[in-house]
Amino acid sequence: MSKVVRFHQIGGPEVLQFDDVEVAAPQAGEVQIRVKALGINRAEVMYRTGQYVIDPVFPAKLGYEASGEVIAVGAGANAFSVGDAVSVIPAFSFAEYGMYGEVVNAPVHAVARNPAGVTHEEAAATWMMFVTAYGALINYGKLKSGDTVVIGAATSSVGLAAIQVANMVGARTIALTRSKEKERTLREVGADHVLLGDDPNLTDAILRATDSSGARVVFDPVGGPNARNIIRAMSHDGIYYQYGALDSRDIPVPVMEILTKHIVIQGYELFEITTDPDKLEQAKAFISEGLASKALRPVIDRVFRFDDIAEAHRYMEAGNQIGKIVVAL
Amino acid sequence: MSKVVRFHQIGGPEVLQFDDVEVAAPQAGEVQIRVKALGINRAEVMYRTGQYVIDPVFPAKLGYEASGEVIAVGAGANAFSVGDAVSVIPAFSFAEYGMYGEVVNAPVHAVARNPAGVTHEEAAATWMMFVTAYGALINYGKLKSGDTVVIGAATSSVGLAAIQVANMVGARTIALTRSKEKERTLREVGADHVLLGDDPNLTDAILRATDSSGARVVFDPVGGPNARNIIRAMSHDGIYYQYGALDSRDIPVPVMEILTKHIVIQGYELFEITTDPDKLEQAKAFISEGLASKALRPVIDRVFRFDDIAEAHRYMEAGNQIGKIVVAL
Repeated sequence: MSKVVRFHQIGGPEVLQFDDVEVAAPQAGEVQIRVKALGINRAEVMYRTGQYVIDPVFPAKLGYEASGEVIAVGAGANAFSVGDAVSVIPAFSFAEYGMYGEVVNAPVHAVARNPAGVTHEEAAATWMMFVTAYGALINYGKLKSGDTVVIGAATSSVGLAAIQVANMVGARTIALTRSKEKERTLREVGADHVLLGDDPNLTDAILRATDSSGARVVFDPVGGPNARNIIRAMSHDGIYYQYGALDSRDIPVPVMEILTKHIVIQGYELFEITTDPDKLEQAKAFISEGLASKALRPVIDRVFRFDDIAEAHRYMEAGNQIGKIVVAL
Repeated sequence: MSKVVRFHQIGGPEVLQFDDVEVAAPQAGEVQIRVKALGINRAEVMYRTGQYVIDPVFPAKLGYEASGEVIAVGAGANAFSVGDAVSVIPAFSFAEYGMYGEVVNAPVHAVARNPAGVTHEEAAATWMMFVTAYGALINYGKLKSGDTVVIGAATSSVGLAAIQVANMVGARTIALTRSKEKERTLREVGADHVLLGDDPNLTDAILRATDSSGARVVFDPVGGPNARNIIRAMSHDGIYYQYGALDSRDIPVPVMEILTKHIVIQGYELFEITTDPDKLEQAKAFISEGLASKALRPVIDRVFRFDDIAEAHRYMEAGNQIGKIVVAL
């Protein structure tokens, strides 16, 4: 029997419950993992509260990220062996798999070997943040030395990952945040500039930070009216990746700006990368290299005990973390 | 001496004047053309009134499109011979070349041989409309059989060209217009559906016309608040090419819509195609093939005499034309 976290109705963190479940042997194309650490994601909070892109079917399992040890291997999954330290990439639906458990099965395409020297807590914090950032900045945006990228909500785990990914290829970063108190952390992670996202003079501030040339890439989960000020500070052929909707209001796009500068505004989701085998392999390779060289190091805000997973959800909802919330088993 | 239309100050159509000019022999990389017909473009009206992307230096020449006969060939321009029937593609700046004249020089990369059976008036009306439509729909948008494209301001010359380009590759078209009076013309040109662009229920109307799947490509010079209704009727992985700013207000982009459907909003200009030698060659080949097969036939609203070119500008400003305004010499 394994303790698995599920919920049987939509609601607050208190609906998360520990169910004793007999986890089936891994089927063809699956590996079975004894979980050592798992990552908490906003998607899971939204799923629990009925606001996610898919609706739960009860009892609902959940969890996109985990790291642990392979304890069984299904047919055709022989790229992995019992005893391997592996972690799980968000490349599946909660309708099929959920990583919140002591023992879980995962589809082999979503499993990566942990590089040497990376802890289970770090590995459990890795894939959502770095694949999301990598996909927009590198796979799509072709970010390179000489480019400048504006990173919205930069103290989020994905924002911090984006700073590291940009630095890894030699690009300069402008981190946007709601308060200057977090400036020191952002600079320690590698931000070249830290600006307030709601500064009414944000356009001028970005232009000053780029010697008037503007930013070629924007990577932003916020949107809303302030996005207009960022768009106005983009360079010719700029691309604005909108990867969240923290502000649910329409984005007012200045038409002459996008027309004369051939600017692209693009809605972007992690799953564009993780559901495409080639892109996913390239992402794994880039990120594994970055982890091994320590160019990429997931920023972890706090580690909760498995018994306190509801508390971990509550902590995410409060929204004061800088980086990833992890649960250790 | 050649009569050349220039203006010596910003102003209304009356500032266009006929100057007697000694046109220099074509330099290296130029051909000299005796103009038989020229096309009138909104860009020229904007340039004359000081609202274009570049400011005039007086005396200012202008004109992006012409068709005529080669009368002299500069060094290195031996792809063309004296006597060839050719037309001129907008692939240069008014600071360097202007096609409003009896005799003009043009850079060889902007010159195309007229297909057999195409009149000078048709050839002078061809390149702005078809290259603009081709670039977004085919070169970038990869429009193909099974796709549906929404075409804003469909009775404009570029809108009508877009209907023909879409039909040429087997795609279905939804033409937007301000009044149902123009529906018959749009259907004759090949529109599958004709809808009112300012209908508050435009989203539902587009979804009905696409069996609820939405349009993959939008090609629109209008923008403004109504664009929101179009974006909401786009399919997964849809691309919205904004190629004008007839409504100068911000475009309100619904964020969840672009996020969950990975929609792209892209500012687009003809010059992205005409300043890239490879793209321009592909455009010439596609359009020449279409002209030869009669799949593409420029819609001409009215032909003015050269002496009445100011009147042709006035007529464009009134904005009631369906298709291209041409001047014959």
